[in-house]
Amino acid sequence: MAEQNSTKMVGKQSIVFNNPPLILAGSSIAGKKEGEGPLGHLFDTVQEDPMVGKESWEEAESELMKEAATKVLEKAGLKNSDIRYLIGGDLLGQLIATSFGVADLNIPILGIYGACSTMGEAMALASILVDGGFADRVLAITSSHFAGAEKQFRFPLDYGNQRPYSATWTVTGSGAVIIVNPNLHKPNLGEKAIVVKGVTIGRIVDYGLKDSMNMGACMAPAAFETISANLEDLNVDPDYYDRIITGDLGYVGRNILIELLKEKNIDISNNHMDCGIEIFDKDRQDTHAGGSGCGCSAITFTAYVMKQLREGAWKRVLFVPTGALLSQVSFNEGKTVPGIAHAVMVEAV
Amino acid sequence: MAEQNSTKMVGKQSIVFNNPPLILAGSSIAGKKEGEGPLGHLFDTVQEDPMVGKESWEEAESELMKEAATKVLEKAGLKNSDIRYLIGGDLLGQLIATSFGVADLNIPILGIYGACSTMGEAMALASILVDGGFADRVLAITSSHFAGAEKQFRFPLDYGNQRPYSATWTVTGSGAVIIVNPNLHKPNLGEKAIVVKGVTIGRIVDYGLKDSMNMGACMAPAAFETISANLEDLNVDPDYYDRIITGDLGYVGRNILIELLKEKNIDISNNHMDCGIEIFDKDRQDTHAGGSGCGCSAITFTAYVMKQLREGAWKRVLFVPTGALLSQVSFNEGKTVPGIAHAVMVEAV
Repeated sequence: MAEQNSTKMVGKQSIVFNNPPLILAGSSIAGKKEGEGPLGHLFDTVQEDPMVGKESWEEAESELMKEAATKVLEKAGLKNSDIRYLIGGDLLGQLIATSFGVADLNIPILGIYGACSTMGEAMALASILVDGGFADRVLAITSSHFAGAEKQFRFPLDYGNQRPYSATWTVTGSGAVIIVNPNLHKPNLGEKAIVVKGVTIGRIVDYGLKDSMNMGACMAPAAFETISANLEDLNVDPDYYDRIITGDLGYVGRNILIELLKEKNIDISNNHMDCGIEIFDKDRQDTHAGGSGCGCSAITFTAYVMKQLREGAWKRVLFVPTGALLSQVSFNEGKTVPGIAHAVMVEAV
Repeated sequence: MAEQNSTKMVGKQSIVFNNPPLILAGSSIAGKKEGEGPLGHLFDTVQEDPMVGKESWEEAESELMKEAATKVLEKAGLKNSDIRYLIGGDLLGQLIATSFGVADLNIPILGIYGACSTMGEAMALASILVDGGFADRVLAITSSHFAGAEKQFRFPLDYGNQRPYSATWTVTGSGAVIIVNPNLHKPNLGEKAIVVKGVTIGRIVDYGLKDSMNMGACMAPAAFETISANLEDLNVDPDYYDRIITGDLGYVGRNILIELLKEKNIDISNNHMDCGIEIFDKDRQDTHAGGSGCGCSAITFTAYVMKQLREGAWKRVLFVPTGALLSQVSFNEGKTVPGIAHAVMVEAV
């Protein structure tokens, strides 16, 4: 298996799978505000109680994750013992939403952190484990919670701070997928199968921005570099994809992304979509630049993108969750906010 | 590639590689106190300045990581552009030591979090990427910093709190390895090659302990379960390994681990070693229960364990970094401290 003999390594940073893993099922647990948004009718569950019956925001987020894991297992017709590995992460320091959310499942776990790009990283690694023959069934999961994220990164809710128009609204929700060996499972009758054709692992991209209230601008350069790398590695045009779907750039980041790509003569203005823009109605819901958080791209993918693929509305999608690599400490110490984005090539077959 | 046909999946949670990846080089950057300990003469660099010339503990830790990455590339005779992916993480919230430490390398990155088990998780994923044909060269890296960790998890140093005898001392240091396709690289003349034969991915194990000043006790059950799983999955006795090496259980956790295994009629008292016990002289250095932190197992592995394997003193080692899954928030909210441990089967060939 010398360098030139592995057909899986494509270009500088992409992977194309030999036997594209199947996304057997996806689940979406959304908060109340998300349930009131344009995608509200598509989520598996809308959890009306922001505390989810728990005593802290962190416990509430763990509970959302537990519900997402339970739901995706149910939809896939599997038990937790059928899953060989779980890959998950969240925005909270030391991933406590994940640790306390999925411990009871008793599945061997790989904890990951990619800020709001986590769903992309989780799906990429899950597909790698399956395609490489290291696992037959892997569960990829992530979550975020508006109040937990405000507490972690900004101000306590009680402080009632004003939010600039460039700020995004962290989505309360958890999404999970089960990615499996396609030789072992068949998709449901009458539906297209959804497979992961390949992935592009992103670099950390730092344009020197420091405004944590404008994360779209901080992350757009990373989305730009990962999308460019994918198109270049695969040697395809943007319209190879029915949609190029970023995670949570919002209105500000979207415009920057489109402009950056135009400078390289790449035009995605007709087939770009951003989960952060889709998930809220900014006029009606006062969400400013859009939705954000690991849960934003995760539940938009599992509730909406997968539906479009299953029903044949779209055939090929490049799913590009985007993350801002900051902490309260790095922000307070005056550091920049670098971005990262991982791309997952998803196809209906 | 049906379930029964992949020889890589072994038992419930282990992987055995078809073409065991080669650990081409390892680097170890240690702090002053670590340099004064029993392994001091083995580290590549002892950094005498705890601030590493920077303005914050977090920046200092990033700098240690940068030095470890630079050193391991130099020792391997490679450039950053030769590395397809980097896998790394640290203890700080949102992995800021890693993000700011390795961004300049411009290598596509997968951020991971496994608390002090991070080096095990990084080496496992790096080996999976290489054995699966997804990459030819992967850099796995982690770090910790005593002062940064105290600030993150406990008290400001200036507060001068007393430390109970069960407390461990977070190692200041960063370790990195480069794991490569064995068909593309030869080990140095006159030395044994070190390969990763397989891995066992751990579960989250929670025995209900809540004492963050006794992390050895919190992590020992996870080490117990992962070591048991490895021996069972591989169907081998403990003496199959010349050493079974835990990350940072320290004196307290080591005793619990040995006792837990004895209840299952597994005796590792003769071939167990703990990096946290080896790295400091507890009487001379006032380090109480031992060393801890992601850097503890990382630099003990790269400086000492790899040397023993290269020189033929040991042939087979089970390297089991151990992590305590807590945050300042989870601790303050009265949650338990669950543990996790990932095992890496390392062999001199």
